[in-house]
Amino acid sequence: MKPRKPKPLNDSIGPDVALTDGDHALFVAANAVFERHYRPFWHMVAAAIRSLDGRVWTGLHIGTTVGRLSVCAEAVAFGRALLDGDGTIQTAVAVRHPKPEEANRELAVVPPCGACREMILDHAPNATIIVKDANVLIKLPIRTLLPLPYRR
Amino acid sequence: MKPRKPKPLNDSIGPDVALTDGDHALFVAANAVFERHYRPFWHMVAAAIRSLDGRVWTGLHIGTTVGRLSVCAEAVAFGRALLDGDGTIQTAVAVRHPKPEEANRELAVVPPCGACREMILDHAPNATIIVKDANVLIKLPIRTLLPLPYRR
Amino acid sequence: MKPRKPKPLNDSIGPDVALTDGDHALFVAANAVFERHYRPFWHMVAAAIRSLDGRVWTGLHIGTTVGRLSVCAEAVAFGRALLDGDGTIQTAVAVRHPKPEEANRELAVVPPCGACREMILDHAPNATIIVKDANVLIKLPIRTLLPLPYRR
Amino acid sequence: MKPRKPKPLNDSIGPDVALTDGDHALFVAANAVFERHYRPFWHMVAAAIRSLDGRVWTGLHIGTTVGRLSVCAEAVAFGRALLDGDGTIQTAVAVRHPKPEEANRELAVVPPCGACREMILDHAPNATIIVKDANVLIKLPIRTLLPLPYRR
Repeated sequence: MKPRKPKPLNDSIGPDVALTDGDHALFVAANAVFERHYRPFWHMVAAAIRSLDGRVWTGLHIGTTVGRLSVCAEAVAFGRALLDGDGTIQTAVAVRHPKPEEANRELAVVPPCGACREMILDHAPNATIIVKDANVLIKLPIRTLLPLPYRR
Repeated sequence: MKPRKPKPLNDSIGPDVALTDGDHALFVAANAVFERHYRPFWHMVAAAIRSLDGRVWTGLHIGTTVGRLSVCAEAVAFGRALLDGDGTIQTAVAVRHPKPEEANRELAVVPPCGACREMILDHAPNATIIVKDANVLIKLPIRTLLPLPYRR
Repeated sequence: MKPRKPKPLNDSIGPDVALTDGDHALFVAANAVFERHYRPFWHMVAAAIRSLDGRVWTGLHIGTTVGRLSVCAEAVAFGRALLDGDGTIQTAVAVRHPKPEEANRELAVVPPCGACREMILDHAPNATIIVKDANVLIKLPIRTLLPLPYRR
Repeated sequence: MKPRKPKPLNDSIGPDVALTDGDHALFVAANAVFERHYRPFWHMVAAAIRSLDGRVWTGLHIGTTVGRLSVCAEAVAFGRALLDGDGTIQTAVAVRHPKPEEANRELAVVPPCGACREMILDHAPNATIIVKDANVLIKLPIRTLLPLPYRR
């Protein structure tokens, strides 16, 4: 059987990849988490998500001695949105603090890990994620970041 | 070599296993989460933790299509305490909602899973956990629930 | 600053998406795992990976009472390739057994979860994965399944 | 209501904590894994389990860029016992390789993490685990290492 050409996986990437002022504010909110909460190893990634109602919830990575059991910053931010807000995700961003021994001391925007991509796609399939590509911040649909997701 | 008799693992269980009024209020707070947030499969466990400053933070399990990638209610509650509060855990409790097909419709107190025991022990080694034993709610130190923890 | 148009994320999808005889044999090997090992809830997904040296290693999902702590079939298959073989992944496939209550009794090819995508990309960045798209089995690069991965 | 005194959590610790020759062989098998497979960061823990039929299966930690998505050595060993053997666990042990920067270069016996305790208790509730306590290797029941486990 001749295989069908697969659907383009990134057909949802349109001209709307540019960040809005609100997206820049989200990025600033994620960065600001480290002013109060940075602890080497225990809190290395911060996140911020904007709900559909416009409110912003920040989150913090919870490190554990056994790394497998750690909790991602995006999960904490989303949990706060669930408990305190409208429980939605319009846009999300995460930033990583350099380790104590790293020369580059800048906070870096990091895309969500594979686990968070699944969580966000399950709970907010229309969410967009701020990522850095070729040194420019852009916004991509979560669907683009987890093509052909596991489904039962 | 003759092995030393191992240390009693539960030597920290003293007479203080009884719940205080504050502990009962914590249990009520965990139960109350489901009044607003219960969704079969996606939100099945709720948690409440009391910080050392006396404030209470609730949390909610975040289900995912792939169960391995889910987030525990205790982690969300602790994340909120980190972001909004003093970031401590004095006492924690979790309750599980019955599944739609289960006959017993009561909320059940559940002990933390192995992952949450690690997280709580790492971040609040003196915390106590409300568990049900022989149908009575009691409080046990997190150290008792994770004897001989993995250490590097 | 005007954002650059993002790189096409699927530029690696070429004409080589069609399955070879060896790929079909891999799919058969994954299915065959359930002849000996199926147990509802505890073993629901089987996997098979072919190493660069041509040998095939199968794996089995290890369910746990707390789903977050389960182990994926791909991880077991890769662990076996590490211990018994050359520790590489050329191509991988996973199949899911229907739950006892599901009407459709066929085994279904399932793509790797977000966690396994990370593991495979870390350890075998040139691996290809057999997935079903529009009812046809095709092969996609792991890079396509985890675009813009988290990097430190 | 007056709380019942909790059951001693360690009542299963009897005189049989001493290691047998077979247990020492298991420990040697776990150590030997590193002769072939050690890679800093990617493979830091090795494990060995003995099935009820007496055969030994080794395993290896699979590190990932995102630590949350890593796979434990015990899980790989158990997966191999499932696929190749009788799928049981009589006794298990894990050893950790020092990090490149650590002064102490000895392999250290480490107890299973909270996730592996859950997996072992689910699949082999009568298993015993070799741990180091007060510098002596002893064997403890998995039930002792995960008292009052989460149950639905």
